[in-house]
Amino acid sequence: MIRKEEIRDWLIFLQQDICRELEEVDGKGKFVADPWERPGGGGGVSRVLTNGNIIEKGGVNFSAVYGQAPEAVLKSLDLPSGEKNDFFATGVSIVIHPFNPMVPIIHMNVRYFEMNNGTSWFGGGIDLTPHYVKDEDARYFHRQLKNMCDKHHASYYPEFKKWADDYFFIKHRNETRGIGGIFFDYLKAENGFSRESRFEFIKAVGSAFTPTYTHLMKKNAGHAFSEKEKQWQYLRRGRYVEFNLVWDRGTKFGLDTDGRTESILMSLPPQAQWEYNYKAEKDSAEANTLALLQKGINWAT
Amino acid sequence: MIRKEEIRDWLIFLQQDICRELEEVDGKGKFVADPWERPGGGGGVSRVLTNGNIIEKGGVNFSAVYGQAPEAVLKSLDLPSGEKNDFFATGVSIVIHPFNPMVPIIHMNVRYFEMNNGTSWFGGGIDLTPHYVKDEDARYFHRQLKNMCDKHHASYYPEFKKWADDYFFIKHRNETRGIGGIFFDYLKAENGFSRESRFEFIKAVGSAFTPTYTHLMKKNAGHAFSEKEKQWQYLRRGRYVEFNLVWDRGTKFGLDTDGRTESILMSLPPQAQWEYNYKAEKDSAEANTLALLQKGINWAT
Repeated sequence: MIRKEEIRDWLIFLQQDICRELEEVDGKGKFVADPWERPGGGGGVSRVLTNGNIIEKGGVNFSAVYGQAPEAVLKSLDLPSGEKNDFFATGVSIVIHPFNPMVPIIHMNVRYFEMNNGTSWFGGGIDLTPHYVKDEDARYFHRQLKNMCDKHHASYYPEFKKWADDYFFIKHRNETRGIGGIFFDYLKAENGFSRESRFEFIKAVGSAFTPTYTHLMKKNAGHAFSEKEKQWQYLRRGRYVEFNLVWDRGTKFGLDTDGRTESILMSLPPQAQWEYNYKAEKDSAEANTLALLQKGINWAT
Repeated sequence: MIRKEEIRDWLIFLQQDICRELEEVDGKGKFVADPWERPGGGGGVSRVLTNGNIIEKGGVNFSAVYGQAPEAVLKSLDLPSGEKNDFFATGVSIVIHPFNPMVPIIHMNVRYFEMNNGTSWFGGGIDLTPHYVKDEDARYFHRQLKNMCDKHHASYYPEFKKWADDYFFIKHRNETRGIGGIFFDYLKAENGFSRESRFEFIKAVGSAFTPTYTHLMKKNAGHAFSEKEKQWQYLRRGRYVEFNLVWDRGTKFGLDTDGRTESILMSLPPQAQWEYNYKAEKDSAEANTLALLQKGINWAT
């Protein structure tokens, strides 16, 4: 039986490992650690890198919190209100905003949750938000995820890819946030899956982040870009803000339950723009990208 | 009995009037009209001014929509789901983002709603979001609103001022959006108030907008500002985005019910910034402003 401390310690290791490798590839920026405590129990360490060579703003958060479950947590889990129910939650959450519009934004999260009634599960995901969708990079990204998933269970990639398409969707724009990836939640020891096998999968997701993203950093960070492309990046960052503040369940949940605001909103870009009724020019690179921001594209072929 | 067409026509006049006077004071920018239709019935005209002398991005929206009430509307009004209930809603909504950080952001909204079961009411408000809170301007703004309200009913200003403090509150930052103003909703013909007197009040709110805001434009648009003050403006605009996307009920309702996204999100600033864990310097103008972003300050003295 895997203890929660073992999961937590692995996540602490993961956070340090990812920060070290991102610093190495960036070549200039350094993550600054900001430890914090949660009044109700536990805390975390936010690590933020700003103004590197490649990364403009990147955050890699670790947290492990516990205590009596807030009403909102009980409600979200359909547990009886007012019941004395202790919880434990731990996770690593990452968002990287690069300078160069040719390098994509990336998000990754792995998390574990348990209640003192014995219920426990894993959740997480990785998704990519290119400012300009490039066929080659999109296929690379999804193939990496598919290969990783396939080593654990044949159902994982197709199921979690669809889940990401549905989750990372900006309903009021009728467009996906980016090219998706994988998303999953409530992975319990059930249906023939052991708790051990779920944790092995979570470790594989966490470990896939660095090689996958640093490949895209190295490949694209040297590309030239124009002022027009930079403007487009700011508009796409505006959409990223819209998704995170309007639709992202984790963000809403955190802000509703007195989570640590600065760590939750670390995902927001350094700057973003909005232009009333912006229309991309016909057949432009921007229009081509917009046409690819939709559900159901099979990139892993 | 005032007919809904009369209210709608007055709002059309108000929109045109406000746009003309804002253009005159700005001296350069012109509002561009963008008419739109609602598939379910009705439509509106969004008027947007960008890159004026004083106004960087300003939107003045008019809409009059009708048809069968969406489920979400029935739910929000505690009306039985599935009931065939036609509604009519009309309003003018304004947000102005100026270039100069010494000029405040302003928001104004007046609206009328009726159901075919005979229920109808007015709602609206004005609130000011200075990037730097100046005592003189804050007092001027609230006194203007108080004087206007007092002509209609002694209860209006104290009641609606408190409502604004509670409404324009960024819970996850524990700060108000700005210095508040007035906010009110569900003003019906009841408790001794006639429908006519409610409409007179709405007209007074709408008419108070231009003289109040153009005074602040003229007074402050010539003030010099530093790069540091401009950066602060971008951070405050970030908070404006957070309020509108996370907490504003009108925005959430519009995005949830397939409202016209571009008109709803016209309230967002041309650009905004986020800085992890920003702390204002002790005793700085920024720290002084933050200290005044709280509920319950009596500015109208």
